[in-house]
Amino acid sequence: MIDNGLRPGILGGLRVVEGSAFVAAPLGGLTLAQLGADVIRFDQIGGGPDFTRWPVAADGQSLFWAGLNKNKRSLQVDLTAPRGREIIRQLIAAPGEGGGIFLTNFPARGWLAYDELATGRPDLIMVVVTGNRDGSSELDYTVNAAAGWPEVTGPRDTDGPVNSVFPAWDALTGLSVALAILAAERHRRITGQGQLVELALSDVALAMTAHLGRIAQAQLGDQVPQDGNYLYGAFGLDFETSDGRRVMTVGLTSRQWRALVAATGSEAALEKVARETGEDLAGAAGRFRAREQIGAALRPWFAGRDLATVRRLLGDAGACWGPYQTFTQLVAEDPRCSAENPMFTLGHQPGVGEYLMPGTPLRFSRVPQPDARPAPGLGEHTSEILTGLLGLPESEVRDLHDQGVVASPDRSQP
Amino acid sequence: MIDNGLRPGILGGLRVVEGSAFVAAPLGGLTLAQLGADVIRFDQIGGGPDFTRWPVAADGQSLFWAGLNKNKRSLQVDLTAPRGREIIRQLIAAPGEGGGIFLTNFPARGWLAYDELATGRPDLIMVVVTGNRDGSSELDYTVNAAAGWPEVTGPRDTDGPVNSVFPAWDALTGLSVALAILAAERHRRITGQGQLVELALSDVALAMTAHLGRIAQAQLGDQVPQDGNYLYGAFGLDFETSDGRRVMTVGLTSRQWRALVAATGSEAALEKVARETGEDLAGAAGRFRAREQIGAALRPWFAGRDLATVRRLLGDAGACWGPYQTFTQLVAEDPRCSAENPMFTLGHQPGVGEYLMPGTPLRFSRVPQPDARPAPGLGEHTSEILTGLLGLPESEVRDLHDQGVVASPDRSQP
Repeated sequence: MIDNGLRPGILGGLRVVEGSAFVAAPLGGLTLAQLGADVIRFDQIGGGPDFTRWPVAADGQSLFWAGLNKNKRSLQVDLTAPRGREIIRQLIAAPGEGGGIFLTNFPARGWLAYDELATGRPDLIMVVVTGNRDGSSELDYTVNAAAGWPEVTGPRDTDGPVNSVFPAWDALTGLSVALAILAAERHRRITGQGQLVELALSDVALAMTAHLGRIAQAQLGDQVPQDGNYLYGAFGLDFETSDGRRVMTVGLTSRQWRALVAATGSEAALEKVARETGEDLAGAAGRFRAREQIGAALRPWFAGRDLATVRRLLGDAGACWGPYQTFTQLVAEDPRCSAENPMFTLGHQPGVGEYLMPGTPLRFSRVPQPDARPAPGLGEHTSEILTGLLGLPESEVRDLHDQGVVASPDRSQP
Repeated sequence: MIDNGLRPGILGGLRVVEGSAFVAAPLGGLTLAQLGADVIRFDQIGGGPDFTRWPVAADGQSLFWAGLNKNKRSLQVDLTAPRGREIIRQLIAAPGEGGGIFLTNFPARGWLAYDELATGRPDLIMVVVTGNRDGSSELDYTVNAAAGWPEVTGPRDTDGPVNSVFPAWDALTGLSVALAILAAERHRRITGQGQLVELALSDVALAMTAHLGRIAQAQLGDQVPQDGNYLYGAFGLDFETSDGRRVMTVGLTSRQWRALVAATGSEAALEKVARETGEDLAGAAGRFRAREQIGAALRPWFAGRDLATVRRLLGDAGACWGPYQTFTQLVAEDPRCSAENPMFTLGHQPGVGEYLMPGTPLRFSRVPQPDARPAPGLGEHTSEILTGLLGLPESEVRDLHDQGVVASPDRSQP
């Protein structure tokens, strides 16, 4: 097992080489790294196209890059140089039961073709992320436009679609990549076989959209309009409080609905809604059809109370609700997003400062989870990987630096 | 290995018992089932609270439930009856190297406590999904409100937050659950140990929000407003075409930016933007700061062309773009969302009709992927599971039906 200074975690002994940019592939590597795998990300000297992605700190360092590359090791190498490519090939094919795993969203051809890389390690597992199944490029934001969701998002009177800001398809692709590696490694452990695994961002989005019933619904002729912050198919809506805050409330299950009604003392008002609309509010469908009238009936209760009172009364009743928070309010007000939550470490990112860094949200009862560790400096582990994993003599590592084939952090500043 | 009529898939031999409702836990089971695991979902006789969740077909059958329970087997049982609970306990503890795995979002206490279930199988792997880390309940829609994203989503002049309609946190939790099972099963394969794995929906959301740099950004004092359909930190925007359609365009990388500029012949207009704003449009940050002026410069090009022309010209130039599509347009116009895409099967869901059903988006080169199979009828596999996996004599299975302890599909209609 590679000693990378981490506590082992449940995936101790696994080693993944990552050639990646932006969200999906790096998140796949991050997910495995935070479970204890030794994940080595290699980058072109100076950093790839995501090295300066926003959000950034005051000095221009990317908080995005830092976030997606925690717990990894970094190798900085000239990928245009034949010797640089040879180093990557050797790294991918390096021996070890848990090695021989390569994760990438770079084009898997030429020197990065599966067959080429597998000559050094026939049991190679390689996971390749593309935009579309045919290999053409596509981003979260363009896939999202195609997948239908922006047309049902946003206020009712919005002129046009509303993009999601959170890149959900990228994130789901990232977790799928991690899943693919574990599935393929299980298969290799049983059969000895490696394999190529391919995955398209648009397939992830389309599969998920279909899993939730939206493709079937469209094929059966049902059309859904933009509907503001109403929950689809049951009752859920946001309300403003007397101190200008907002809360989201949900009555999806019967239990949640009864708690919301009881907490707000709305029995009589809602009986009136049921009478006037002819809907059975005991059922989710009836609550959905009468959602506007329910909203109107509940609104005064929220408008007459401040957030602290709403929090206490809904909490006491066991209602399903939550306050809206800006990112700033989230870190200022929510104990779940603080060092009180053992998932978070108050970590120090060199050059940026201290902030909350999450480890894995998975809690295994018999294996300690590694703490979050700050992202490496670009090339921070170049020398240790070359001398350790690849077994190169120190003189050769010096020469590679001198020739500009590899670099350590001092060479990575933009 | 259980013969469940599926081609094996990469997870052939794995058996997961699922006690679940709504999205996260069922999606975890679905993900494993579509990779070839034998996933047995048990439900209270008549179905759980998600059995009628919208969207629904004309006869009230849930397209949502059907979507999230494809490729699974279904056991229908009275979970309030001691004998019903005993059957579930035996099912979870049933022998077999790939068995002894239980996935749930039910309260993991009483008869469903880990220690209780592990008496029958000390190497039990049990994954429990909760709303919050302390076990309190929380839904995607309330977690989303707390996590900050609705406050940066939607048109600039929106009064209040904009909810996402796609339940991204649920979906990510579902994939995390599948990942947790494979990680724990790998560990069990190596050490023989089972374990309890816990996972909170809110932790998944907070970790992902932090991974993308948004927590750090807030802690460092940066506040981000709602910004319509602009891409954050680079150039990306939607445009209307002459035939009233809309397209999303992205210039995140230099290559994407150059392709967009070339396709739209906007070199001169954008040089003017650069001069007037003083921004360097060759960099993503400059493109972000000048995004409004860039949008204004590009808008006439789109307004003067119909979608077909835009598609051809942007496609030829290799620009990064995509049309907005409603769910209806998606199934009518997009070949990726059709039976041309091998991920999809045109399947028949009994009582509903034919529609596109996706299998796993993961493509393994050495193992065939199981096709999507329609969701089971509630209790469709009750008898075969009791006689097969649990080895009960047929006479006892008949008695259990007669006593109302278990049920087959005829008893499941609402």
